[in-house]
Amino acid sequence: MRTPCFPIVLILAAVAWAQPQTYPLGAGPWNYTTYEKNTKIRVSVVTKGLSHPWSLAFLPNGDVLITERPGRLRLLHNGVLEPEPIAGISGLSIDQLFDVALHPEFAKNGFVYLTYIKKGKAPDGKNGYWATTALARGKFDGKALTGVQDVFVADAWQPLNGGDGSRVVFGPDGKMYFSSSHRRNPDAPQDLSSDVGKILRLNDDGTIPKDNPFVGKTGAKPEIYSLGHRTVLGLTFKPGTNELWETENGPQGGDEVNVIKAGKNYGWPLVTYGRDYDGKRLPGPSRDGFEPPELFWVPSVTASGILFYSGDKIPAWKGNLFLGSMTVGRLPGTGNLQRIVFNVNGEQRRESLLTDLHQRIRDVRQGPDGLLYLLTDENDGALLKIEPVQ
Amino acid sequence: MRTPCFPIVLILAAVAWAQPQTYPLGAGPWNYTTYEKNTKIRVSVVTKGLSHPWSLAFLPNGDVLITERPGRLRLLHNGVLEPEPIAGISGLSIDQLFDVALHPEFAKNGFVYLTYIKKGKAPDGKNGYWATTALARGKFDGKALTGVQDVFVADAWQPLNGGDGSRVVFGPDGKMYFSSSHRRNPDAPQDLSSDVGKILRLNDDGTIPKDNPFVGKTGAKPEIYSLGHRTVLGLTFKPGTNELWETENGPQGGDEVNVIKAGKNYGWPLVTYGRDYDGKRLPGPSRDGFEPPELFWVPSVTASGILFYSGDKIPAWKGNLFLGSMTVGRLPGTGNLQRIVFNVNGEQRRESLLTDLHQRIRDVRQGPDGLLYLLTDENDGALLKIEPVQ
Repeated sequence: MRTPCFPIVLILAAVAWAQPQTYPLGAGPWNYTTYEKNTKIRVSVVTKGLSHPWSLAFLPNGDVLITERPGRLRLLHNGVLEPEPIAGISGLSIDQLFDVALHPEFAKNGFVYLTYIKKGKAPDGKNGYWATTALARGKFDGKALTGVQDVFVADAWQPLNGGDGSRVVFGPDGKMYFSSSHRRNPDAPQDLSSDVGKILRLNDDGTIPKDNPFVGKTGAKPEIYSLGHRTVLGLTFKPGTNELWETENGPQGGDEVNVIKAGKNYGWPLVTYGRDYDGKRLPGPSRDGFEPPELFWVPSVTASGILFYSGDKIPAWKGNLFLGSMTVGRLPGTGNLQRIVFNVNGEQRRESLLTDLHQRIRDVRQGPDGLLYLLTDENDGALLKIEPVQ
Repeated sequence: MRTPCFPIVLILAAVAWAQPQTYPLGAGPWNYTTYEKNTKIRVSVVTKGLSHPWSLAFLPNGDVLITERPGRLRLLHNGVLEPEPIAGISGLSIDQLFDVALHPEFAKNGFVYLTYIKKGKAPDGKNGYWATTALARGKFDGKALTGVQDVFVADAWQPLNGGDGSRVVFGPDGKMYFSSSHRRNPDAPQDLSSDVGKILRLNDDGTIPKDNPFVGKTGAKPEIYSLGHRTVLGLTFKPGTNELWETENGPQGGDEVNVIKAGKNYGWPLVTYGRDYDGKRLPGPSRDGFEPPELFWVPSVTASGILFYSGDKIPAWKGNLFLGSMTVGRLPGTGNLQRIVFNVNGEQRRESLLTDLHQRIRDVRQGPDGLLYLLTDENDGALLKIEPVQ
C-alpha cells in the first residue's frame, strides 16, 4: 500500500541523486612511493580557500598569481593567500577567467596576461549574450593590476555553450601562443575564417606576426597557427626545444596530447579516437592530412595543465611530462596527476599519481624552487606542493 | 666517507628493488558505492589459498571447479576449498593450465574441458622443449576427472615464449570456440596455415565443423574461425545473441574487446592502437580489411576474463560488460574490475571498481545465484563474491 509520505521520499531521493559527489581534501601532508620505489614524495597543502582555481604564475619575489574561474585573480603573498582579489580586471566583462602568464621580461615591464571568456551583446540585442575568447594585458605592481586592456579579442563570437578553456604561453621565439577552444561549434574548428577551435600566434602586444603560416592566404585569418582543435586546456614548450605541447579534451576516449606545428590540422571534428557522449562512434582515428596525437587516453582523463619537469629536486622525474587529470571517464572523484615517462622511441610508461585524493587536478607547474605545484579545481580549491622525501 | 657496509647496503637495495611489490588481500568484506549511488555492493572472500587461479566453472550442485595456472584443478565443495587437487590430469604434460568449461549437457555427460599449454620435445630432441595450445576433455564424477584426453591439439608447436593464454567457450550453436594466442610469434597470426594467433571453432568432440569459414580453402586450416589475434584472455557469448565477445591483450595501449565474426581478421600485428613495450610506435589503428575493436584502452588494462551480467540481483548492472583488469599500464597493484555500460549507440561509460584492493583480477563469472564471482591471479589467489547491499 502506498503511504502518504511516498512522494516526499521520492523527492528526497531525487535531491540526493542530483547532489554532486564531492571529496573534501584533508589537511595532509600525504606521502607516496612512486613507480621507482626509491622515489618517495610528499604532497602538502600550500593554501586552500580558492574557488575553482585554473592557473598560476610564479612572480620573481616568490609570490604567486592564481586565477579563479568565476573571474577573480588572487595573490599568494609570503605563502599566505590574500583575502581580497587583486583589483584591476573588473572592466573586462569576464564570464570565465582561465590562464595567467607573465611576460618573459616581466621583471622589467611588469606585464601580466590573462585569457578569459568575454561577454558581449547578442546580435539582436536581446536573448542573453554572446561571448568570445579574449587575451588581456595589465601591469602588476605587486598589489594590483593597472592599465588592463584586451590586446587580442578572437573572432569567435557566439552563444555560450561550454567547451571554452583557453591558455596562453610564450615561446622561445618571444611570441604568444593563445588557444581558442571549439565551444561546441561543430564546423568552425576546420574553418580558417574563424578563430574558434584554433591556436593563435601573436606578438606580445597582440599584433600579428608576419611569419604566421596563413598570412596572405585568402579567406584565412592571419593569427591562426594551427587548426582543428577541440578544448585546449594545456600548452607548454618542452624545455630546450621549440616544441609546443598541448592537451586537448576530446569526446569520450578522445583526450589527446599533441605536438603543435605551424599550419597543421589536428582534426576535430573530422578525425578522433573517441566516441560521442551519447555512445555514438565518431569518424575514426587520424588519417593523411591530419596530425595524429602524440598521446591519447581511452577512457579520457580530462587532461588539463601540462608541464615537462626540468628540475633537479626529483631526479627520477627529470624530463617526464606531467598533466592534470580532472576525471577519468567523467566519473566524479577520479582526478589524478598523470606522469608520462619517455625513452628514445617515445612514450614508455604512464603512472597515475595522487588517485586517493580524489581531486580535479587543473594545473601543474614547476616552481622556482624546482618543486611541482598543483591546483585542484574544486569548490574549496587548493594549491598543492610536491617535494621529495629522503 | 664510505663505510665498510656500503656494498652490503647496495646489495640489499638491489634485492628490495627486484622484489615484486605485492598487495596482500585483507579478510574483507569491503563495501563500495558505485557510479549510480543507490547501487551499493559488498565484496567478500569465498576462499583464499589458490595459486594463480585462472578460470572457474560452476557445477550444477553449487560446487566450483577452479584452475590454477601451475597445472592444478581445484574443487570448492560446499563452499570450502578441498586441500588436494582433483586427480586425473597428470597425463596431459601441462606447462600452464588455463580455462575450464562444462559441456552444455554436463548434467547428462559429465564432460569437462580444459585448455592448456602442452609440452613436447623440441624437433632436434634436445635444447629444452617446444609447446602448443591444447584442449582436453574428461568426465567429472564429483571428485575426480576420468578418461582425460586431448580432443584438439593446435598446430602451434614452437618454443615457449610467453603470450600464451587460452579460453574455450560453447556457443549457442553447440560449437566450441577455442583460442590459441600469438605466443610472440610475429608472423603466424596472419598465416592461415598456422593455428597461432587464432580463434578456432570445433565440435564438442574436437572434430572440425564443415561450415567453418576456411573449410576447403587451399593452404588454410579448416579449424580457424578468426585470425590476427594477440593474447586472447577472455571469451563470452552475449546472452540472448550469437555475438562472441573477446578480450585481447595488446602491446602498450593496445588492449581490445572485439566482437568475433567468422573469417574476419583482427589485425595483429599489422594494425593496433598501441605502442611496443620499448616505446616504438606500431603500424597504427585499424583500416579496411581488418575488424576494429569494439572497445580499447590506453593505457592498457591487461584485460582478462569477460562477462555480460544477466542476473537480477544487481539491477543497475544488467546488460553491463565486466572484465578483469590485471594491471593498468603494467604498473604493479593497479588491477581492478572494469565495468562497461552501453546504450543504444554503444559504449556509454566505463567504471573501474575495486581499485583499492590492488588485485590482479583474472576472471569474472556469474554464479547460478545471480551474483558475480572474481578470481585474483596472485600467489595467494582468492575467489571473491560481489553481492548487493540494501
